[in-house]
Order: sequence, then structure tokens, then C-alpha cells
Amino acid sequence: MDRKIQQTQLPKGAKIYLPDEAAQKRRVEAELCGVFRKWGYRDIVTSAYEYFDVLAQGTDQELQERMFKMVDRESGRLLALRADVTPQIARIVATRMREEPKPLRLAYLTNVFRYDEPHVGRYREFYQAGAELVGLPNPEGDAELIAMTVEGLRALGLERFQLDVGQADFFRGILEDLGADQAKVRELRSALGRKDVSALERIVAALGAPAAVGELLLALPGLYGRGDVLERAERLVKNPRSEAALANLAEVYRLLTAYGLADSVLLDLGEVSGFDYYSGVHFEAYVSGLGAPLAGGGRYDHMLARFGYDCPATGFAFEVSRVLLAIENQGAAEPAPGPDFFIIDFTADKTRALALSRRLRDLGAAVARDILSRGLDASLAYARQQRARWALVIGEPGTDAAEVRVIPLDGKGGERRAAAAEILADPARHFPDMGGTRHA
Amino acid sequence: MDRKIQQTQLPKGAKIYLPDEAAQKRRVEAELCGVFRKWGYRDIVTSAYEYFDVLAQGTDQELQERMFKMVDRESGRLLALRADVTPQIARIVATRMREEPKPLRLAYLTNVFRYDEPHVGRYREFYQAGAELVGLPNPEGDAELIAMTVEGLRALGLERFQLDVGQADFFRGILEDLGADQAKVRELRSALGRKDVSALERIVAALGAPAAVGELLLALPGLYGRGDVLERAERLVKNPRSEAALANLAEVYRLLTAYGLADSVLLDLGEVSGFDYYSGVHFEAYVSGLGAPLAGGGRYDHMLARFGYDCPATGFAFEVSRVLLAIENQGAAEPAPGPDFFIIDFTADKTRALALSRRLRDLGAAVARDILSRGLDASLAYARQQRARWALVIGEPGTDAAEVRVIPLDGKGGERRAAAAEILADPARHFPDMGGTRHA
Repeated sequence: MDRKIQQTQLPKGAKIYLPDEAAQKRRVEAELCGVFRKWGYRDIVTSAYEYFDVLAQGTDQELQERMFKMVDRESGRLLALRADVTPQIARIVATRMREEPKPLRLAYLTNVFRYDEPHVGRYREFYQAGAELVGLPNPEGDAELIAMTVEGLRALGLERFQLDVGQADFFRGILEDLGADQAKVRELRSALGRKDVSALERIVAALGAPAAVGELLLALPGLYGRGDVLERAERLVKNPRSEAALANLAEVYRLLTAYGLADSVLLDLGEVSGFDYYSGVHFEAYVSGLGAPLAGGGRYDHMLARFGYDCPATGFAFEVSRVLLAIENQGAAEPAPGPDFFIIDFTADKTRALALSRRLRDLGAAVARDILSRGLDASLAYARQQRARWALVIGEPGTDAAEVRVIPLDGKGGERRAAAAEILADPARHFPDMGGTRHA
Repeated sequence: MDRKIQQTQLPKGAKIYLPDEAAQKRRVEAELCGVFRKWGYRDIVTSAYEYFDVLAQGTDQELQERMFKMVDRESGRLLALRADVTPQIARIVATRMREEPKPLRLAYLTNVFRYDEPHVGRYREFYQAGAELVGLPNPEGDAELIAMTVEGLRALGLERFQLDVGQADFFRGILEDLGADQAKVRELRSALGRKDVSALERIVAALGAPAAVGELLLALPGLYGRGDVLERAERLVKNPRSEAALANLAEVYRLLTAYGLADSVLLDLGEVSGFDYYSGVHFEAYVSGLGAPLAGGGRYDHMLARFGYDCPATGFAFEVSRVLLAIENQGAAEPAPGPDFFIIDFTADKTRALALSRRLRDLGAAVARDILSRGLDASLAYARQQRARWALVIGEPGTDAAEVRVIPLDGKGGERRAAAAEILADPARHFPDMGGTRHA
């Protein structure tokens, strides 16, 4: 069998994480879940596959087209892999958690599947760590999620990040005023998304919109920046829906300022992409040097009603693989630690190695044992390659079998010998910082 | 939309974990991953979908038939969801980790998909936490995985468990001696699996096997128990392959005795089910009161060769949902903790609540805030329902806004008041055990 062929046998968009990368992934997920926990969010686990028509109820057509689909053998109905966790949680809350006191703070960490062209840290199976705050219409809810996003970025050790915050209803108010058809709206969205001012001018002219609306549309790409954006927009906007959206965004911005986050936030009223289901404040998190957002979310006050329960909600998710890319770009990756101890036992019965391993593990240390029979040098080379911190050598030919030779492999401290019984009696005295280099 | 209909809209075998159950699941996964880490195992993450023909290389036909399959839009090739992680890891090692020094200690935690009839804590999407030890032919490797399984069961707080340990090559040796065809072998396996002695007698008679082989086959269902099984089998066995298998099992048993695990292990030479790919010692873990194994694994020395790299290996996995069932049966479930603090702030600007939340979170505590405007009693009722440990009430009408009213909600300790500034200055003095009730 040819190895080259084997290596390319993965379908497009499938992704394997080898140990070093998997350790980074685990660390990122643990940090993000730690932030969710600290904000009082409880885990929820959805199903990876569902009936397509049920998933479709909560997703727009564009996403439906990008789902992995298959036929259920028993029912003959179409199944799909989850392409978005939020509509699943919306349905679960609407059907199974309706009676629970609100708000609900829910968090998830899961794989998600989309038939996208792989790009910037996005595969066809990718991992999201997200949170949903259900039952809270207040701007405080939006501010809480944005603050959690910033806390997540900080917990990950990322710097030079920025949150672009928009308000979906602001643009909807303009569209209402405009009364344009779906095709024109798509063109508008597309031109705004590309910040293509000349295309925008052409479309606005063709629409024959009232002068004030046209002026506002042309101003949108520039309505981007700090708090002054709110004042500039206020002077331009004329319809009540956009005005209410602006007042809501202003209150969220005020709260973010109280959180001490104003410096990390850029308001962007020209941001009109994102899910169709967003109904209010929505945001995306970027870090310097990565063109795609690491996290994003927004308010979706009307989605639960699609499942028969009218209840406001807002949520967001981190894209784990993009976070990994950003961490790598910023050089913020911590090398994955190896085991604390690597035990090499030359005695025949191995009872000392077993007793020592158990004792050290009971104290929380990670302990690997060499089982292959090889020379000491080969064993130490293997231990170094595994990034173990200490090698403990027992019963080396010509030495006292009751003694342990302690070899620091990370270059910290010198080699020493200790009686096995002494280490067993009080390991923490011999290795005060063992188990301290790892993430739970 | 009718709620009843919505509730039944999940496909068969799909499973949702609501927060309390999800918290148990998270705890179980964290404990198991903690054990893997302590034994020096490193994470690896495989892809949820692959080309069916590639997955098929490592799996037997029976499992291939139970895979979820779909057509890849681009290539038109058949894709399948992973139904077993071990063959994926075998291929990854054979193609991408071949040059790394052995042994490799690899661990995973992932969802797996099989078109089975749902039964005893097994859904069509289920979660496995497993480990693979690659590159180690020694009995020490088998003993290490069995010891890890026991340590996992103990870490989970499970009692009255037992490991059934068999040796796949022992039965293969008998079959070689017998020279029976595939159909007869299947009948034999099936009768042995059911411990159906009369069916076994019928088949053995029909085979016209030599007397010694017939005697051994009929003895198989009884070759079950402690170390004496080895001696009894030794007296009956005549072929070199089975004899070697027996010697290997005896060595593994000796090591398990050295690990202090002999009491938890039952040898079972009549156990002939399990994956076709097992080539040596294999085992299953049971707890009292649950008819299905919680964990299982075994040696698969010939699988990597299917991917072009001849390398011995052994592995095992826990079935997370069965563990959850066993924990529930044994009453070992810990109620999921709520947040440490629930902050209720009646002031208009909320800056005290924000400052307090941040300070407490920085110290590792979980802090939820009430954002809905409701009365104190309603807020406290919500906090209790969320299982928060303390309510911190700020700016209650008629009280000093610089004071915090501390209300223990778990019945431990009495209500008190403290200056907000004092709590901020030294939270740990006021709440010495905050953040201490949770799993990472």
C-alpha cells in the first residue's frame, strides 16, 4: 500500500488534530468553557444529526444548502448534520425547557458541519464553543455576551483584538422605508458587505430612493468607529425602527463602556451580513493579522417563536480552529506539556515502578512508564522527545535497587539520587511543583 | 405549532443532554481524560466523517453495515460517519506518525455513530473516551490499559465492578485445529456467546472434531473465573497457538496481580465476541446492575498492517452514556453545582455588580447576575432554582448602597452584611471555599 495515497485519503474539509495540535485545541476549549462556567452558564448537548426539515425551521435557506444530508434508513426521511447549534438550542428550549425560570444561561462545545469551501481555519467539520442567553430582552444581555467574548479572548492570551458591533434592525428600518424588492436588497447587502461605494451609488441611484434614505445608505460604510458613530447616525436616520435600533445600540455601548471595554469595541452600522435570524445587536471578534472572525453572535428574538415559544434570546460562539490559527499567528501557543514523570525500571518485578507511579498519580501528577526494554540512553531520548519533566531511573545495572536516580529533563535543577522509600513517603517534598504545568 | 409534535421530532437514537445531565456527562469525561493524562496519554482528534472505503479497511463487515453513510457532493464517493475510532487512529499512526518514537500513548474523547437499535444507555450517536497504546507488543501494555480502566471506574466513584478478560488467540488456536468453515465458526461463536451448552454440544457433535478438541470446546463456557482458569485450560489445550495465548494471558494476569487488581478481574476464555480485529488479550468492564459493558478494549496487533505499517497496538474505550447510567443506578451522581454567586443589584448604574463580578471571577468563582427587573423574593427564588451558593444583594431599597447583603442559599451559615469595598479588597477572606465545588 502506498503511503502517499493513504495520506490523501481524507475527504476535503476533514481535519485531524495530531497530539501537539490537539493539546492546543483542548487548552482553548478548556479556557472558553471556563469563562462560560464563570459567568454561570450550564452545558447543553445537542444531537449531531436531526431531521433536515426540523433543522430547516430554524435556519435560512443559504445554510440549508450547505448541510451534510443523508437518508434515514428506517423512516426514509432526510437527515442532516448540525450546521448551526443555535437553532437546535432554540428548539430544545421551546419544547423541553419552556417551564424553567428565565433567563437560561446555556453553553456548548461541539463539532459542526458545513459544506463550505475550506478557508482561514475553517474546515467542513469544525468546533464551536458557544453560549446562549435565553429569556432576556434587555441590552444588559447583549453586553454580557460581548463582555464574555472579550474575557474569552483574554483568557486565551490573545492581544490586538477588536469587536465589530452592529445592529440588524437599523438596516431593516432603512429597508422598510425603501420598500425595495428581495433582489435589490441582496444587491445592497452585497455592496455594503464589500464596502463597495461605487456599486452602492449605482444601486441607490437605480432605486430612486427619497434623498434622505439615499444619503443614509451611502453613509452606511462610513458609520464605523467609536461612540461618535451613534451621533452621526442619529442625525441621518428618519424612521422609527432604525431610531429604536440606534437607541438600543447606544445603551449596549454605554454598558460596554461601564465594563471598561469601550477600547475594544468598534460600532459598525454598515455591517449587514451574518445570519438572517439576527434581530438586534450582533458582533464579530477579530484579531490583528487574521482576516476572518474568531467569534461572532447576536440577538435572535424571533427564532424561538418558529418553534412555538415567543421568547427573546441572544448568543455567540467561538470558532476553535480559527482561535488556534490566531494563537499560532500571535506566537501565544504554549508548548503542550509532556508527563511530569517518566519511569524507567530495570528491575525484573517492576513493583517499585508500579508503587511509585500510583503514588505520584494519586497526587495529580502525570506519569508514563517505559515498557520497551531498551538501554538507558534510548529511554532518556524517548522521555525527552515526550517532553517529560523528570526521568526516574530504578535499578540501573550496578546501582542500589532501593535508590531512584532523578534526572531533570527540562534543564531545571541537577541530577540527584534519593531512596525510593523516601520519595514514596513524601513525593511532594521531592517534587514540589509536579502536576503544576498542565491544564485540567 | 403543536408542542407534542415538536418534542417527538428527534430521529431515533438521537440524544439531547439537558443541563443537569450534561453536567454529569462533562464530569465523567473530565475524570476519564484526567486518568488518561495521568498515565501520560496525549489527545488526538479524528474526523467525524471519512470516505467509506477508507474506514472499511479497518472495520469488519458487520460494523460497515451499521455506519451512517452519505454521498460526497463533490467527489460522488461514499462518505461515512465514524463508527469506531480505533481504525481511524491506526490509519493516522500508519500514515502520519510512523516516524515518531514508539510507544505512542494516544487518547480521545468524541462522538461515534452506529445504526444500532438503541439499548442500555447506547444511542445512535454516542460518546467514547478511549486510549490507544501503539508500538508495544509486551503484556505490560495490556496490563497498563486494564489498570487504567480500573482507575477510571474508581475515579468515577463506581463500585462493584468487574473486568472480564479474554484472549482472542486462544479460540483462534482451537479453530485452526478444527479447520471448520466460516458458517460453523459463526454458529460456534454464537452458541459460546450465549453460553448455550446444549447448542454447543450439538455443533461439536456435528463437527466430528477430535475428542480432545471437542472436550476443550465444551469446556470453554466453564473456563471462567480467577487464576485457576489458567491451570484448568492448560490441562485441556493441545495446540501451540492456544498454548502461547494462554501463556500470554497468564503473564498479563500476573502483572494485574502485581497492580493489586486480581480481585477485580475475571478470566473468561469462553468470551469470543468483540471486534474481529482483536488479536490477543481483550476485556470488558461491567458494574453490578447494568447488563452491558461500560468499557471494553483489546489488542489489535494486525490492524496497522492493513494501512501499510506493521506495528502492534492495544486500546480501549469507555462508553460515556453507559457510565452515566451506571452512576445513576449506583446513586453516585453528584448534583451539578450552580454558580458560586448570584448578584442582585438594585442600583441604576450597576457598577458595583460589575466590579464585584469581575473580582470574584478573576479568583475562579462562577458568578451569574440577575438582569431581569423583578422583586427580591423572585430573584432569590430564581437563584435557588439555579443552585447558586450565595446571593449578593446590592442597593436593596432602604439599605446602604455601599453594603452587600450576603445570603447563603445552600443553608450553610447565616445571612450577613459586609461593605462592598471590603469584599472587593479581599473576597477570599469572605468566601474562603468559593470555586471549590466544581470540576474543571
